[in-house]
Amino acid sequence: MKSLIWREGNLEVLDQRLLPEKVYYMECRNWRSVAECIKGMAVRGAPAIGAAAAFGLALAAREHAQEKEEAFYKRLREAAEGLKSTRPTAVNLAWAVDRILAVAEGQKGQSPEKIADLIVAEAEAIAREDEQVNRAIGEHGAALVGETSRILTHCNAGALATVGYGTALGVIRSAVARGKKVHVYADETRPYLQGSRLTAFELSRENIPVTVIADNMAGFLMKQKKIDLVLVGADRIAANGDVANKIGTYSLAVLAHFHGIPFYVAAPLSTFDLSLKSGDEIPIEERCAEELTHFHGVRLTPEGVGCYNPSFDVTPAGLVTAIVTEKGIIEKPDAEKIRRHVEK
Amino acid sequence: MKSLIWREGNLEVLDQRLLPEKVYYMECRNWRSVAECIKGMAVRGAPAIGAAAAFGLALAAREHAQEKEEAFYKRLREAAEGLKSTRPTAVNLAWAVDRILAVAEGQKGQSPEKIADLIVAEAEAIAREDEQVNRAIGEHGAALVGETSRILTHCNAGALATVGYGTALGVIRSAVARGKKVHVYADETRPYLQGSRLTAFELSRENIPVTVIADNMAGFLMKQKKIDLVLVGADRIAANGDVANKIGTYSLAVLAHFHGIPFYVAAPLSTFDLSLKSGDEIPIEERCAEELTHFHGVRLTPEGVGCYNPSFDVTPAGLVTAIVTEKGIIEKPDAEKIRRHVEK
Repeated sequence: MKSLIWREGNLEVLDQRLLPEKVYYMECRNWRSVAECIKGMAVRGAPAIGAAAAFGLALAAREHAQEKEEAFYKRLREAAEGLKSTRPTAVNLAWAVDRILAVAEGQKGQSPEKIADLIVAEAEAIAREDEQVNRAIGEHGAALVGETSRILTHCNAGALATVGYGTALGVIRSAVARGKKVHVYADETRPYLQGSRLTAFELSRENIPVTVIADNMAGFLMKQKKIDLVLVGADRIAANGDVANKIGTYSLAVLAHFHGIPFYVAAPLSTFDLSLKSGDEIPIEERCAEELTHFHGVRLTPEGVGCYNPSFDVTPAGLVTAIVTEKGIIEKPDAEKIRRHVEK
Repeated sequence: MKSLIWREGNLEVLDQRLLPEKVYYMECRNWRSVAECIKGMAVRGAPAIGAAAAFGLALAAREHAQEKEEAFYKRLREAAEGLKSTRPTAVNLAWAVDRILAVAEGQKGQSPEKIADLIVAEAEAIAREDEQVNRAIGEHGAALVGETSRILTHCNAGALATVGYGTALGVIRSAVARGKKVHVYADETRPYLQGSRLTAFELSRENIPVTVIADNMAGFLMKQKKIDLVLVGADRIAANGDVANKIGTYSLAVLAHFHGIPFYVAAPLSTFDLSLKSGDEIPIEERCAEELTHFHGVRLTPEGVGCYNPSFDVTPAGLVTAIVTEKGIIEKPDAEKIRRHVEK
């Protein structure tokens, strides 16, 4: 199932808020509706929102292709800023927007129509490459999965979080394709339930065994020796290897460390932000209290009670056993190893 | 707000499944409806279900008070077995039932009517003592709370989990009564949401500041130095100090240990089960998958996906900084200290 479909110059976005009950694609005809989809989490997952934003710029470029050069660039930059501001933590969003802008800036003097075509082509390239990159991550990462493995994952780092195949779930798919016997435990991942709604949906469609647990059960499973490894995606990785990912990831990393269980992160190079020395500099999005106070209109907390709802946390590199990228595996990541890995 | 009201020979049980939206008491006229209330979690919390079961036996005794001695005892034992089998982990249930049975067995030869009166009186004593015991726990425990304290709690170990005042929340009430400035972070506590629905409800009614978080945020809060201590209740404590409590407690204990934050357990002596050498012997209840697959009729996981839903976990004594009972504080609990504490 595709998170994004680019068809006849429109972007169709799978509304992941309705899964697993309903498969419905929203049609986006301009960058503003793409931005709404990202902000409202119809589309989520670092690589997927990067690709969605690229297509958002493609829509903006097409929309203003008949305008004069100056107006065209102004509109494009407006769209770029608007898309970038939707969600602060995942760096793939800024990465994709900047990549599209670089194409436009590199073509100054060309007609807006010509540049719009190049932007559409670049957005399509970003989407195509994403799936290739994920398959490469899967190939490398499969080596970390034993012949019989019980894997704990958090949130959804699957096909739905990317353009296709997935990062953490890509590694699992790749391991299964090699004949490994895998059982996945999926944290339900409060408050948005990406684990029970999305990861369980993806894996069960491919008959990969999956059991959903509440987030607070992970430690007890580790204590019972039911988990062989933890495998998650990432939203931003700093130069020193600190990893921002869905809230709850840090707790899992501490629990894995305490139990001597390897903790792996699977992410493309576009998730690395070498401009940030450490995870302390990664902006952490806080979302609205309603995600915790209500569910489908039912009030869970008494009126007037406050909630704290950070969407991400940062896991220090010291708790990460290895990071898997499309270029291979970085064991015990640190600034030096990451620099060499990215450059190679 | 009372979890249980014994009025005119009937037991009224606050249906905690409807909180915080609705305050509604179910009237129980026989032990079977009390058993239903315990099994279905209308009433929950180790001390509260103990007292509820005691009143259940009082109802059974009254119901059969006109029968012959043999028939009366047979019915009473049936009710005792039925009530004991509702939930396996919290030992207060068996403790209360056995205490009532001991009264009955000690009065053999008396008329069933007379014995029924004694049983009712004993059930009332259990309820009365529970609140006194909790106030004593609060008095002792308040010493563990700093003048300004940010306390993380899990599940609901409050007035609603007891007959009144609460264990962990009793300590917090006591600290507040002494003028300490307390801010409580309440884990929402999936899947049953005792934290967001019950703990937040109790505390906000008394204007004790409370912030609800998802269970998976606890580690990140500790990392941000927002938590000074963790304080929870217990469902059963083994002779060596291992603590069974609501699922997720073990993860919190590991996280607190990693961050050097004290981890306290507040529980009455009736929660200790010295017949069990360690927590490995404590039976862990597994509840139905629906608690994870559905919410208010909305499906969260795709059809056919399995869930694992243990309701409790066991925290080894080595991760417990101290246990607070009505007799005082057991620091770094072990078998020897617990034996001496219980005997003193």
